[in-house]
Amino acid sequence: MNPTTEFQGIAASPGIAIARAVLLEQEQYLPEKALIADPSREQERFRAAVAEARVQIDRIRISTEEKLGAEKAEIFEGHLMLLEDPELIDAVIESIGSDSVNAEFALYEISQGFIDMLSELDDETLRERAADIRDIRGRILNILRGVAGGDLTQLQDECIIIARDLTPSDTAQLNLNAVRGFVTEIGSRTSHSAIMARSLDVPAIVGAGEGISSIKAGDLVVMDASEGKIWVNPSDEELEKFRAAKAAYDKRKAELAAWVGKPSVSKDGHRVELAANIGKLEDVQKALDNGAEGIGLFRTEFLYMGRENLPTEEEQFQSYKYVLEKMEGKPVVIRTLDIGGDKELPYMDLPKESNPFLGQRALRLCLERDELFRTQLRALLRASRFGNLKIMFPMIAVREELLEAKRILEEEKQSLMQAGIEVSDSIEVGMMIEVPSAAIAADLFAPDVDFFSIGTNDLIQYTMAADRMNETVSYLYQPAHPSILRLIGMVIDAARREGKWVGLCGEMAGDLASVPLLLGLGLHEFSMSAGSILQTRELIGSLSHSEWQEHAKHALTLRGQDEVQAYVQTQRQGGQ
Amino acid sequence: MNPTTEFQGIAASPGIAIARAVLLEQEQYLPEKALIADPSREQERFRAAVAEARVQIDRIRISTEEKLGAEKAEIFEGHLMLLEDPELIDAVIESIGSDSVNAEFALYEISQGFIDMLSELDDETLRERAADIRDIRGRILNILRGVAGGDLTQLQDECIIIARDLTPSDTAQLNLNAVRGFVTEIGSRTSHSAIMARSLDVPAIVGAGEGISSIKAGDLVVMDASEGKIWVNPSDEELEKFRAAKAAYDKRKAELAAWVGKPSVSKDGHRVELAANIGKLEDVQKALDNGAEGIGLFRTEFLYMGRENLPTEEEQFQSYKYVLEKMEGKPVVIRTLDIGGDKELPYMDLPKESNPFLGQRALRLCLERDELFRTQLRALLRASRFGNLKIMFPMIAVREELLEAKRILEEEKQSLMQAGIEVSDSIEVGMMIEVPSAAIAADLFAPDVDFFSIGTNDLIQYTMAADRMNETVSYLYQPAHPSILRLIGMVIDAARREGKWVGLCGEMAGDLASVPLLLGLGLHEFSMSAGSILQTRELIGSLSHSEWQEHAKHALTLRGQDEVQAYVQTQRQGGQ
Repeated sequence: MNPTTEFQGIAASPGIAIARAVLLEQEQYLPEKALIADPSREQERFRAAVAEARVQIDRIRISTEEKLGAEKAEIFEGHLMLLEDPELIDAVIESIGSDSVNAEFALYEISQGFIDMLSELDDETLRERAADIRDIRGRILNILRGVAGGDLTQLQDECIIIARDLTPSDTAQLNLNAVRGFVTEIGSRTSHSAIMARSLDVPAIVGAGEGISSIKAGDLVVMDASEGKIWVNPSDEELEKFRAAKAAYDKRKAELAAWVGKPSVSKDGHRVELAANIGKLEDVQKALDNGAEGIGLFRTEFLYMGRENLPTEEEQFQSYKYVLEKMEGKPVVIRTLDIGGDKELPYMDLPKESNPFLGQRALRLCLERDELFRTQLRALLRASRFGNLKIMFPMIAVREELLEAKRILEEEKQSLMQAGIEVSDSIEVGMMIEVPSAAIAADLFAPDVDFFSIGTNDLIQYTMAADRMNETVSYLYQPAHPSILRLIGMVIDAARREGKWVGLCGEMAGDLASVPLLLGLGLHEFSMSAGSILQTRELIGSLSHSEWQEHAKHALTLRGQDEVQAYVQTQRQGGQ
Repeated sequence: MNPTTEFQGIAASPGIAIARAVLLEQEQYLPEKALIADPSREQERFRAAVAEARVQIDRIRISTEEKLGAEKAEIFEGHLMLLEDPELIDAVIESIGSDSVNAEFALYEISQGFIDMLSELDDETLRERAADIRDIRGRILNILRGVAGGDLTQLQDECIIIARDLTPSDTAQLNLNAVRGFVTEIGSRTSHSAIMARSLDVPAIVGAGEGISSIKAGDLVVMDASEGKIWVNPSDEELEKFRAAKAAYDKRKAELAAWVGKPSVSKDGHRVELAANIGKLEDVQKALDNGAEGIGLFRTEFLYMGRENLPTEEEQFQSYKYVLEKMEGKPVVIRTLDIGGDKELPYMDLPKESNPFLGQRALRLCLERDELFRTQLRALLRASRFGNLKIMFPMIAVREELLEAKRILEEEKQSLMQAGIEVSDSIEVGMMIEVPSAAIAADLFAPDVDFFSIGTNDLIQYTMAADRMNETVSYLYQPAHPSILRLIGMVIDAARREGKWVGLCGEMAGDLASVPLLLGLGLHEFSMSAGSILQTRELIGSLSHSEWQEHAKHALTLRGQDEVQAYVQTQRQGGQ
C-alpha cells in the first residue's frame, strides 16, 4: 500500500466520500486521415452516425428530465441543437465530399477548430460550449468506430470516479447506487458537470490537477468535497478518522434535511420567513431543495451580463415567469437592475468613474436611462400574473428617487393594461435599504413602500466608508458593529409603525452569529444563499424571540463589534 | 468718448472701483551686447548696482513690514537672497570677465535662462520665483542705466493702474491714497501681486488678457473685482448704475467690518464660536482679518503636497508653531494628515484603489504607516506650548481606531517629555465625524474625546453614497436632507451628554441657509472659509436660538431637502 497522498482541488459539490477508485478511461482517439473512394457513401455513414447520436442523446435527455427536471435536461437540448448546426455538421459533410476524406478525420478537424476558438474565450458560457462540442464529437466518433464508450450506468460496486474531465453526458448517466463521488483533473465550479453534481447531490471535486493521474484503479480514495481535499490509501488510523468525519457529516446533513418544509419559528412561537438569494435560473431549484419559503432577492444582472446587447423584454419576461411559476405562489422579490459599481456592462458604454461604488449605479442609472428601466418593468408586470411577484428598487437615497421609480412603474402598468395585457393587482413594491441615508430616514420612505429589504453588504460598506472589495480596509467590514445594528433597528421600527414588513438580503442574514440579534431586532424575512437556510431554521428554532429582543436592545449599547460578538456568544451559551 | 468695452479677468481681490486709468509703462528694455575694454571696472559697476538694489529692496521690505506685517515682507527677503545667489550674481560677474561684455547684457542673458526654465514648470511656487528674478533684474537694469523706474509711490490722483503685470515691488509701493485698484494682462489668483492686493484690500483683476492694452491713459475705468469684470468709458447712465453698485458694496462691506472682533451671539444671547478653515500659512492672516475666533480646521496636507519627499518633523513644527503663535491663544484645531481619497502623494507610492474615497485614506493610512504619523504627532506636540492646540483625527469609523491613535499620541508625548522637551498639558484631542458609523455611534466615542468636529463634505458623500466629485450624482449632495440633519443632531446630543463640544467644518457651516438649523441643533463651533465669517456672525445675531431649537426639531421630521429648505425660508421670513 502506498503512503497517503493528498491532492487539493476545487470544491464543486459538498460531502465526504470513501471508496475505491474507478478510472474513467478517456484515451485521446486521434483519427488518421484516409482518402476514400466513395465520398457520398462516407457522407451517408456520417449522417447515420449523427442520427444514432441523436437517439442516444434524446434518451439521456429524457432520463435526466425524469431524474433532475427539465432545466438540467436543457444541456442535452443544446447537444441536439449542435447536431443540427450547419457550421459543424454540414461542414463535415462538405469536407468529406470535397476532400474525399474519412468521416472520423473530417469531424475531428472541423470540430477542433471550434473547440480551440471557444476554449480561449473569457466567457465561461462559451467555454462550456467547447465542452459540449467535445462531448458530442466523442459520441459520434464512438458510433463511427463501433466502440461502446464508457457507459457509467453499468458501474455496480461502490466507487469514486477519477477522470480527466466528465462530460455532462457522463455525469447524467452516473449510477448513483454505486458512484459515491467524482474527482476531475480539469473544470471549474461553474462547469456543467459541477452544476449537475450539486443537483444530483454527489460529492465532487474538479480541477484537482494532473497529479491525480497517479491514482490507480482500486486505490482507496477519501474525498472531502466540502474542502476540495483528496487522500489516497490512508492508514487504518487515518481511515478511522475519515469514517468518523463522514458519519458526523452525514448525520448533520440528515438533521438539517429534516427542516425542509417546516416553518421557521422561534422556540417561543415567533414566526419569520427564510428565503433565498438567487442570481440565476438554476438557483431556484436549489432554493426549493433547501426549504426556502420564498425568493428574498432575485438579482437580475445575470440577464444583462456575459452578452453583447441588452436582453429583450420577451427574454426577461420568460425568465421572470420561469421563477414565479417554479416558486408556485411563494413570494419572489425581484430587484430591478443593479448595474454600475463593480458590475460593468461593456456594451452599454458607461463612463468610467473615480469611485464607482459612489457613482451612477443601479436605480440612479435606470432613472437616467429610462428606456432600459421601462423594458424591465414591462417584463416584470407581464410576468406578475404567474406568481407572487414583489418588485424592489435598489440604491435609493432620497424619497424623490422612490417616487419617480413608482411613477414610471405605474405608467407602464397603465399602458400595458390599456393594451389589454393582464397584470396582477397585488404586486408589492418595495425598496432596498443600502444607502445610510435611507436607513436613517426610513420613516420618511415607509408610507410609500410595501416593504423594505436591508442590503447589508452595501449598507455596511457605506456606513463604514470602506470598499468591501478593498483588502486594506476589510477590517472595517463589521456587520455586528453597533452602528450597523442600530440602523437595522431604525429601519425595522420605522416599518413596523407603518405596518410594513422588513427583510434583509445581505450575507448577514445567514450568518449564525448575527441571526439571534436580527431575530431580536424584529426582522421578518431573512434572505440568504440557499445552503444556509436549513441551519438558520434550526438555529431560530432554538432561540427565544422575547429573550433576544432584550439581548438585541442591550447589544446596541455596546462599544464595538468585538463586544457585541462576545455578548452574543455568552447569551447563546447561557440560553441553550 | 469710446463706447463701453468689457473685459473679463480673474477676480484676484474683491471690490468695486471707478477711476481714470494710469498705464504703467513697462517697455521691454533689451540690452545690446557691447564689448568693453576694462572688464574689471565693468564688474565693479555691476557690484555697485547690486549694492544699490539691496538698499532699495531693504527699504521696501521695511515699509512693507510696517504696512502689511512680517509675512508679506518675506517676498523681499527672497529678493535680497537672490542678490546673494552665486548662480545668478557671480555668474554675471564671471561672464563680464570672461566674455568682456557689458553688465546689462550679461545680467539680461543669464537671468533670462533661469526665467525661461522656471516659467515652464507646473509648480506655482517656482513660477513665482521667475517673477521675482524678473523683478530684481528690472531693478538692477534701471540702476545700471540711471533710469528712475516706475515709482508708484508718487501717484497722487485717484486712479486704476493698468499694466502687463505688477511685480511684488510695484504692488508693495502702491500709494493707497490714490490707487483705487489695478488690472493686469497676465497673472493668476495665487501670484504674489494678487495675494498682496488681497492683503492691502485693493480691488484687483489679473490675467485680463492682451485686450486691455487698448485702454488709454485717462480712460474712465470701472472694475468689479469681485466678478473679474472691467468696463471702459461707460455711458453716463451706466456710470450711474456702477456708482450705485459701488456704494452698496462699500456700505455692505462696512456693515460686515463692524462685526470683526465682536462675539458671535444669537439675539437671545446664545453664544457660539465662528472659526476659519485654513489650508496654508497665509490663510491665518485672512482668518484674523475676518474676525475668526479660532482655527476650526487646519488642513495639514499642504505640507506634504507639491514636493518630492515627506516634510521633516522640523519643517512641520515650524509651520504649526507659526499658526499657533499667530493666533495668540485662540483655539487652533489641527487635523492630522488626510491623504488618499482624491489627494495623492506621488512620492509615497500609494496603491491605486478602485474606490479611493472608500479606501485606505487619512487615519487609516497613518495607522498603517506608523512612522509618517509619529513624525507629525511629534511636530504637533513640540509646537503645543506656543498656543492653544487641539489635535483632531480624521476618518474614524470604529472606536478601536480612535484608541490606537490616542495610544500612539500618548507614546510620543511620553517619549518627548522623557527627552526633556516641553509639551503643553492642556492639548485637547478630538475626532472628525465624517464616516456615518461614527455619527450613528457618536455616544460610543464621546467619553474618549474632548471634542467632535463634523466634516459634512465627506459625511454627506458617504451617507448618500454619492461621490461629491461625480457630477452625475451631484443631485444627491443634500446638506439639508433630514438624514444629514438627524446625524448632526445625534452627534451633538451624544457630545452634550458627555459635556464635550461639537464643531462643524464642512461647507455647510458657512451656508446661510443651513446656519439657522445648525444653531438650533446646538452646534457650538462653526468653521468655514474666512470670507464667510462676518456674514454668518451677522446672521446669527439676527436669530433666536430658542426659536430655532424648535424649528430644527421640526425640520428633522420633514421628508426631504426641498421641504426643509422651504421651511427654513418661511421661518426666517417670519422670524425677522
